[in-house]
Amino acid sequence: MNTSPLFVQISKDHPRYRSLVVREMMAKRVEEGIVAPTGLIAHGRGEAFDYLLGERTTENARRAEMVAVAMLLDAIRPVISVNGNTAALCSKEVVGLAEATRAKIEVNLFHRTEERVQKVCSFMEDAGAKEVLGRSPDALLPGIASDRARCTREGIYSADVVLVPLEDGDRAEALVKFGKKVIAIDLNPLSRTARAAHVTIVDEVTRAVPNMTTMVPELRRNGDRRLALLNSFDNQLNLEGAMEAMRANLSAPQSEGKE
Amino acid sequence: MNTSPLFVQISKDHPRYRSLVVREMMAKRVEEGIVAPTGLIAHGRGEAFDYLLGERTTENARRAEMVAVAMLLDAIRPVISVNGNTAALCSKEVVGLAEATRAKIEVNLFHRTEERVQKVCSFMEDAGAKEVLGRSPDALLPGIASDRARCTREGIYSADVVLVPLEDGDRAEALVKFGKKVIAIDLNPLSRTARAAHVTIVDEVTRAVPNMTTMVPELRRNGDRRLALLNSFDNQLNLEGAMEAMRANLSAPQSEGKE
Repeated sequence: MNTSPLFVQISKDHPRYRSLVVREMMAKRVEEGIVAPTGLIAHGRGEAFDYLLGERTTENARRAEMVAVAMLLDAIRPVISVNGNTAALCSKEVVGLAEATRAKIEVNLFHRTEERVQKVCSFMEDAGAKEVLGRSPDALLPGIASDRARCTREGIYSADVVLVPLEDGDRAEALVKFGKKVIAIDLNPLSRTARAAHVTIVDEVTRAVPNMTTMVPELRRNGDRRLALLNSFDNQLNLEGAMEAMRANLSAPQSEGKE
Repeated sequence: MNTSPLFVQISKDHPRYRSLVVREMMAKRVEEGIVAPTGLIAHGRGEAFDYLLGERTTENARRAEMVAVAMLLDAIRPVISVNGNTAALCSKEVVGLAEATRAKIEVNLFHRTEERVQKVCSFMEDAGAKEVLGRSPDALLPGIASDRARCTREGIYSADVVLVPLEDGDRAEALVKFGKKVIAIDLNPLSRTARAAHVTIVDEVTRAVPNMTTMVPELRRNGDRRLALLNSFDNQLNLEGAMEAMRANLSAPQSEGKE
């Protein structure tokens, strides 16, 4: 493949500077074998929805993040499922959240190859993860035909709560059908994943995951608050709130330069 | 880079079958050096906006396509600017439109390398283009610092009307400032390109380009119709119509499975 362009070609004055830098980083992760080529397309889809969201954590998303943290803290066997894009975008942040919530990390790839599983596991370990499951799957998630069904008995198979950042619809639905409580991070509020999950965080993953980590100490101390959050949450209303935020941005032209 | 997955792994029953096949094709074009890696991210952004548009040509977009065809037919020196994504998605369709409107084709890349320019030019020739400009740029478009400023005197530099499918904001704005009539095909109605262009077709490029070609014979015969279209068109209203269509899809959950 041709050489990816250099970071230095991107002017800091460019109105989309941050997006452009992340794009070049993601393209580099493809060359390294962490991100699947079509993972870049998924990243682009997320970018578009985040653009409509105003590239910020809405109050609505913040509430979903708090509910998700409450659910992770009350879980017996919480697991964070990590794919190539999640690793590339926020490996350290995922390790931080896993440690704070005592969740296991399991690598599960949409485009599974042995080589890429190894690479993503190592990438997460380099980011500080003490234990990463997924190298040796010994169980199958029912209801999925492909390799994505492969998981570990110690991790996703026996989990009660699974956080799936950037998940595809088939697997999210299968996890729900198999009885897991599913927390999704998904910028598309209309996606099958967003609609199948019990809690859908409509926020960009690099904002959502650190936000969640900062919420842990207070929610760990306060069981009543966790219960109140869990009892009052309605994911359908949550998704409608996200759509409303996007609709509001799809009207007046924005004053700042957008690409 | 790791091998891209096989086409056969995608089940025809998958609710997003067509998108998945196009994704794999685009990933393959990256391996071949036609599409830049970050071109996949741009493709994903387009996918998201098209999803919101309902993956169809709206009446609004059809009208913009007619206006664009009228503008190309009334042009003295029309040029279609082609980048890697446009070539990968619809090389033959672009050749068809160029022939029907007697427009020149010029290859202009965001991530310009000599090798990729050669490849995209050859790719367009393989699709039937008799003449492809862009291998030997001999002029500079004012107002752009990067290599994207490079163009040919025979083509974009001296054009009066330029069709830019999938363009970036900097270049679209520079073309307008340099006095060109600019027709953009852009699925994001909020983008700088969409707002800078004189006519913005908010439609997916593989639908828009063949649509336009079918409109040529009737509009070529009918000068009054061309004039009426050009005189009655308001791009701001056109963009607002596109946003309205997207807002309408950002409300009720859709019944069919979406990923």
